[in-house]
Amino acid sequence: MSAPSTGPVVRVPLAQLQERLQQIFQRHGCSEAVAAVLAANCASAQRDGAHSHGVFRMPGYVSTLASGWVDGAAVPEVTDVAPAFVRVDARGGFAQPALAAARTLLVEKVRQAGIAVLAIHNSHHFAALWPDVEPFAEEGLVALSVVNSMTCVVPHGARKPLFGTNPIAFAAPCQGLAPIVFDMATSAMAHGDVQIAARQGEQLPPGVGVDAEGEPTTDPKAILEGGALLPFGGHKGSALSMMVELLAAALTGGHFSWEFDWSQHPGAKTPWTGQLIIVIDPSKAEGGRFAERSRALVEQMHTAGLSRLPGERRFRERAVSQREGVAVSEQEWQGLERLLASDRPM
Amino acid sequence: MSAPSTGPVVRVPLAQLQERLQQIFQRHGCSEAVAAVLAANCASAQRDGAHSHGVFRMPGYVSTLASGWVDGAAVPEVTDVAPAFVRVDARGGFAQPALAAARTLLVEKVRQAGIAVLAIHNSHHFAALWPDVEPFAEEGLVALSVVNSMTCVVPHGARKPLFGTNPIAFAAPCQGLAPIVFDMATSAMAHGDVQIAARQGEQLPPGVGVDAEGEPTTDPKAILEGGALLPFGGHKGSALSMMVELLAAALTGGHFSWEFDWSQHPGAKTPWTGQLIIVIDPSKAEGGRFAERSRALVEQMHTAGLSRLPGERRFRERAVSQREGVAVSEQEWQGLERLLASDRPM
Repeated sequence: MSAPSTGPVVRVPLAQLQERLQQIFQRHGCSEAVAAVLAANCASAQRDGAHSHGVFRMPGYVSTLASGWVDGAAVPEVTDVAPAFVRVDARGGFAQPALAAARTLLVEKVRQAGIAVLAIHNSHHFAALWPDVEPFAEEGLVALSVVNSMTCVVPHGARKPLFGTNPIAFAAPCQGLAPIVFDMATSAMAHGDVQIAARQGEQLPPGVGVDAEGEPTTDPKAILEGGALLPFGGHKGSALSMMVELLAAALTGGHFSWEFDWSQHPGAKTPWTGQLIIVIDPSKAEGGRFAERSRALVEQMHTAGLSRLPGERRFRERAVSQREGVAVSEQEWQGLERLLASDRPM
Repeated sequence: MSAPSTGPVVRVPLAQLQERLQQIFQRHGCSEAVAAVLAANCASAQRDGAHSHGVFRMPGYVSTLASGWVDGAAVPEVTDVAPAFVRVDARGGFAQPALAAARTLLVEKVRQAGIAVLAIHNSHHFAALWPDVEPFAEEGLVALSVVNSMTCVVPHGARKPLFGTNPIAFAAPCQGLAPIVFDMATSAMAHGDVQIAARQGEQLPPGVGVDAEGEPTTDPKAILEGGALLPFGGHKGSALSMMVELLAAALTGGHFSWEFDWSQHPGAKTPWTGQLIIVIDPSKAEGGRFAERSRALVEQMHTAGLSRLPGERRFRERAVSQREGVAVSEQEWQGLERLLASDRPM
C-alpha cells in the first residue's frame, strides 16, 4: 500500500493499463485467459493505490514466467467434491485463474448450502489478496481467504524463518457504502512493502525484521538479503501465520512455505503453495439484515473516533483513478514498454 | 492462562471438581443439562491451568444468574437452515449448551458437505473459547470460532472503546500428538487475565490498555475501572476484532459488544452477544493426509527453534492434573463451598 516512486506520474485510463498488462503477460507465455485475469488483478491494485501489488510486480511476473517456474498457460482442474466443497488443482499455474474457473460453482454452493469452501493447490499467488474476496462482498456474501507464501518470517520464539508472510483477507457487504475489506500480511510488514522501502532507500520502524544474523534491524535491504521478517503482534500474529499454513497448505494439499525448491529457476519470484477461500451467505442466518448491521458497525466506529476504516483508502484512490486515470510513474510506464518489447525481463 | 493465586493448593480429582461446579450451577438456577455443560467447561479450564477461565469465573457466573440477566434453564432452539448452515437461538441462555444442542447436526453436515457453519445468537459466553473447538480436532476436523463480548477495547486509531476482547480460537488435528489449538483475545490481553493481575496487585506490560482519561497505563485496576484495553498488534489486531463483531454478531443476529444494556441487572458479568463456529472436514480436500501434514508443520516449527507450540502448555498441565488431580487454591475451594451453601454470590 506504499506510494509509487517519486518522480513524474502519468495518468492512464484503467482499460488502457489493463490492456498493456495483458499484452505483456501474453508476450511472456500466458494464455489469453490467464493474462486477462492477471492483468485485471494487477491493474486494480494500481488503480486502488496498492502499489506494492500493482505495476511494481510486473518484472517479477515476467522473470518468473521466463524462468519456467510457473505455467502461464495452465488450465485449472475444478473438482466438485461435496455439497459445500470445491477443490482446484491449479496445475502449476496462477491462483487467480483457478479461483476464476471455480467461482460460479462456488457461489452456487454458497447460495444453496449457506457456506462453502474453495481449496486451491499447486498454485502460485503473487498478488494482493483483497481482489479475491472483495467481489463476493459486492454480491452480498462474506468472504475470508488465506494464502501461504515463502519462508521469510521467523515464528515468535523461534530462531529461524519458517512461515511466509501469509496474509488473511476478509470482505463483507455494507449497506449503502463500499464493502468492508481488509487484507493483512501476518508478518509485521508485507514483503512488497519491504521491497518498496528498499528501493526508495527508506528505513523501517523497529520490530519489522531481523538481519542475516537474526539481530533486529530497520534496514529493509538487510531483511531482504539473508534476513527475515517477524510476525505482527508477537505470539498471536505468529499463531495466525501458523493457521494460514495449515489452512492454505495442509488442508488444500498445497506446499508449505518452505517446501518448494526454486533454485533451478533463477528469476522465479512466485511462491508455489495453496489458497483457501471460505464464503458465507449471511442471508441464511438470523442476521438476514447483515448489510444493515454492518453499516451500523461502521457508524459506531466513526463515532468512536476512527477516521479511516479498513479498505477506505483504496476506495478513495479508486474514485480518483476512475475520474483522472490510474497513476503510474513515468519510470514504471517506460518499464512496461520495455517488458512488452523484450523477450527477457528487465 | 495465569497462575492461580499464591497460597496453599489442594489437588481435586476432575470428576469431583466437576460435580461440585455442577451443584453450584444448579443451586443458582441452571437446569441440570446446562449445569452439566458449564461445569465440564469450567473444570476443563481449571484442569488445563487456564485459570482465568476456571474456578475463578464461578462468582461471576453465580452473580450473573442471581441478577436475572441470563436464563440458566434456557432450552436452545436449533434450526436446520441449509445443507451447511445451522442456526441456534440460545434464548438468552449460555452459548455452550447451544453448541451442545446443535453439535451432532453440525458434524453430520460437515461430513456431508465438507464445511458447515453454526451461528449462535441470543447467547452468553463467559468461558474460554478453546473448549468449543478442540473436540472437533479430536474427531479429525478443523474448527475456527469467534465470539464477541462487551465494549472494553479501543479500536486502533479511535478515541473510545467499542469492541469486545473478541477472541478467535482454532483447532486442527495433528497425527500422533495432541491437536494444535489456540485461543487468543484480539485485545492485547484477555479480560480475565487483567482481572487476575488486578487481584494479585501486578503491573501489566506497556501497550495493554488505557485509563479512564484514555492515557496509556500499566495498572490493571485503571483499565478495569473506567479505562479500556487496546487491540493486539495495532491496526491488524483491530481489523480482526472488527471481523469478529461482523461474524459473531452481525452474521448470527446477535448483539454487537456495545448493544446490550445490563444496567438493570447489578452483578451481571456475561456478555449477551453471538458466536460463529466454522468446521471443515479436511478429508474432502486434496490434503486428505491433513493430520500427517499438520505433524510435519509441528516438526518444522521445533526445528526452527520453537520450544512451545500453541496449546502445548495446556496439554502439559492437563497431564499433571490427570495424574495428581486438578490444582485449586484452598481459598478458591473454600469459595466454592460458600457458593454452594449460599443463595447469594460471594
